[in-house]
Amino acid sequence: MQSVLAYLERNKARFVRELGDYLRFPSVSAQSKHKKDVGACARWLRDHCRQIGLSARLCATRGNPVVLAKTPRRGSGHGRPHYLVYGHYDVQPPEPFALWKSPPFEPRIRDGRIFARGAVDNKGQHLAHLKAVEAYLKTDTALPCDLTFVIEGEEEVGSVSLGSFLKEHVKDLRCDGIVISDNALPGLKLPALTYALRGIQAAEVILHGPSRDLHSGIYGGAVDNPAMALCQLLAQLRDPNGRVAIPGFYDDVVSLAPEERRQLARLPDRDEDLRQFLGVPRLFGERGYTTTERRCARPTVEINGLTSGYQEEGSKTIIPSWARAKLTFRLVPNQKPERILALIQRHLQRLCPPTVRLEIQPGHGGEPYLVSPKGPRAQAALRALRAAFGCEPTLIREGGSIPIVNDFKKHLHAETLLLGLALPDDNPHSPNEKFDLACYTTGMRMGAFLWQELAKT
Amino acid sequence: MQSVLAYLERNKARFVRELGDYLRFPSVSAQSKHKKDVGACARWLRDHCRQIGLSARLCATRGNPVVLAKTPRRGSGHGRPHYLVYGHYDVQPPEPFALWKSPPFEPRIRDGRIFARGAVDNKGQHLAHLKAVEAYLKTDTALPCDLTFVIEGEEEVGSVSLGSFLKEHVKDLRCDGIVISDNALPGLKLPALTYALRGIQAAEVILHGPSRDLHSGIYGGAVDNPAMALCQLLAQLRDPNGRVAIPGFYDDVVSLAPEERRQLARLPDRDEDLRQFLGVPRLFGERGYTTTERRCARPTVEINGLTSGYQEEGSKTIIPSWARAKLTFRLVPNQKPERILALIQRHLQRLCPPTVRLEIQPGHGGEPYLVSPKGPRAQAALRALRAAFGCEPTLIREGGSIPIVNDFKKHLHAETLLLGLALPDDNPHSPNEKFDLACYTTGMRMGAFLWQELAKT
Repeated sequence: MQSVLAYLERNKARFVRELGDYLRFPSVSAQSKHKKDVGACARWLRDHCRQIGLSARLCATRGNPVVLAKTPRRGSGHGRPHYLVYGHYDVQPPEPFALWKSPPFEPRIRDGRIFARGAVDNKGQHLAHLKAVEAYLKTDTALPCDLTFVIEGEEEVGSVSLGSFLKEHVKDLRCDGIVISDNALPGLKLPALTYALRGIQAAEVILHGPSRDLHSGIYGGAVDNPAMALCQLLAQLRDPNGRVAIPGFYDDVVSLAPEERRQLARLPDRDEDLRQFLGVPRLFGERGYTTTERRCARPTVEINGLTSGYQEEGSKTIIPSWARAKLTFRLVPNQKPERILALIQRHLQRLCPPTVRLEIQPGHGGEPYLVSPKGPRAQAALRALRAAFGCEPTLIREGGSIPIVNDFKKHLHAETLLLGLALPDDNPHSPNEKFDLACYTTGMRMGAFLWQELAKT
Repeated sequence: MQSVLAYLERNKARFVRELGDYLRFPSVSAQSKHKKDVGACARWLRDHCRQIGLSARLCATRGNPVVLAKTPRRGSGHGRPHYLVYGHYDVQPPEPFALWKSPPFEPRIRDGRIFARGAVDNKGQHLAHLKAVEAYLKTDTALPCDLTFVIEGEEEVGSVSLGSFLKEHVKDLRCDGIVISDNALPGLKLPALTYALRGIQAAEVILHGPSRDLHSGIYGGAVDNPAMALCQLLAQLRDPNGRVAIPGFYDDVVSLAPEERRQLARLPDRDEDLRQFLGVPRLFGERGYTTTERRCARPTVEINGLTSGYQEEGSKTIIPSWARAKLTFRLVPNQKPERILALIQRHLQRLCPPTVRLEIQPGHGGEPYLVSPKGPRAQAALRALRAAFGCEPTLIREGGSIPIVNDFKKHLHAETLLLGLALPDDNPHSPNEKFDLACYTTGMRMGAFLWQELAKT
């Protein structure tokens, strides 16, 4: 193990140069003008995996290819642990260019951070894992696990081909667990294992009133106003204490354990800093929970968009024919999206006045994710974090949803360890995306320790 | 008087042809491509006024000219009553063309109605008044009043030049009253004098939340959602009984007198017909009033438009940075727009939660209008209606606002008699606008009787 760590230390500068090479590809999956760049990036990655000592190939999909790379199998492989490492080589669109301090596909290092689109999301994070494996292979240190890297090229456009890829390769990919570093840690002095994610249920609500927009002078007073009816309907989705006001909504919610609350309280988030960062007059949320708890471990209702009537400059004196709202509900373990959707529908139908017609269009749903942090693999991951970062790691839940985690569970019946290497201010999806080089090198060490610890479980 | 009526009867066919000539001008004030047509239409009208014996000229304004036409003055004119007849020669845009059964500027007669853009709004209605005067002048019957026709060319774009025109010509236009036929009557067997109009106050409400749209997974639970806060705020503007829920809002409302309610109850409106016509599941409005009363004599609040967050196809999981609503309040005598605006502002400020920032942009205001139907001129108008239509007229209030009525009151200190000739299904502002030829000819007779009756007051 000493030689692995020494190799990582010795080759630091080269690893940063290689990350720079990788970041120069504008592998923007959302923009068809970058189709060729996406392909070139995939080939670069395949070749790089081969240089490291992996057997690697491009697997065609209906969209962008998946880079599939494996460590050399030792003996028959029977009985040896097998883990998957997931990542994605595609990146978000770089626009708006004007807000970047240096060009998004010309990586620059400032203050120990590398700035480029894709630096943290996700090229830097999975390259750290590849470098850890390189260190094993190049120093002839026995890797205690078989590893398969699945690096896709469509994460930023919804991982549209990943499900069928997993189905096709299900035999080959059968494994003991998945490792993903595509999320955040609270700080370099506070590494974390993410053991829970929120789920989601989306829906659109449309209230239909008169068959066309009406003159509000001639008809105002005769018919209900669909926009007003919508406001009065949606207003009843949340109570004054910030709780979702749908009967039965909290039935399946697993309460935060005292130990979980203690762990979350270790995070260095300060309400006043957050308030200023977000630019709101005051923070708000469900009473009885800290801001951190509300963000990651409590369900919410959000209106994502409102549309009705006249929206241009000035005034138009109409009663709109219809009004529409886009809603998403963030869910926590063990809420089931389909049950929540049924509760939403029943609640709205019961509240909707007879003066308008209610239409509900169900949207996408995603299960919340929770893996016990007490399990042997989670404990192994925590040991690896402790060894790599040199301090006590914490357990966190995250508020967002990572749908691929459920894809892996569904197709491979395996749990995911989420070991984020992004700092909270790394600007993924925003201009001036960066990756801290300390996270990069510490991430490699974490990868090196991880396979040792996981092999013990 | 017999010879006047005989003249009107004898020349019926020619009057319809002349209306057809007038309707052929696409005098669309809103569309600059029709600027020349608007000018040509104004000149045609001026020349036509001269042909029937009036002295007429075009008065330039910053926009389209006003046609100013006067009856020949008898003697010094001192002591003789002087009335203004208002109309407008500009018309609404004809779009969408596809919905017209015959081209909008090629008048066609079907079933005793003439179909064309501007037929009822307002060319046919003021031409009826001109034809009544023509009958007096061409039969050498003494006109018992001096008359001035003010026919403007910008009514459909907000009468932007009328105020300054009235100010400039205030001496010339000093009068005993204004007559306008630019509105509706309930039916050919139910002529009406409109003695009240609703006023209006517009406002925009914007709630500002986070400084940019936020990821609803990462931040949902930490901050208020401005769209939800807006719904909860606006929901409190109207109570479950359909009343505006702003303290003090009804303080200045003049109650409907029993006699007014009796008159309004004479109207042949049926709720079920209206419900089907408007395409709503059920009618709605303030409890304790009939639909007719609510439409014309009770104040309302309407949301004219709602805007927030993501409005395109599909889902975007954000907490919007802001949410906005356009509101209009219809007012009734004696509500004052500026007082109502102050009440709205105070109410919203009191209700707005501290988690968002409230911005209110005041919009346009217009006073409600009420002239006593018991005054001598209103009684004279009712006698003229009775004589022309051969049945008992009724008194109505209308729900819309006609801002020029307040312009006349402000600049000329004179009251307006509103004597509508449009049937409820005449489609002003809509495709297949029409004018019933029976309304046209009866309107001429009404005009003929009107000056006799007004001269007696």
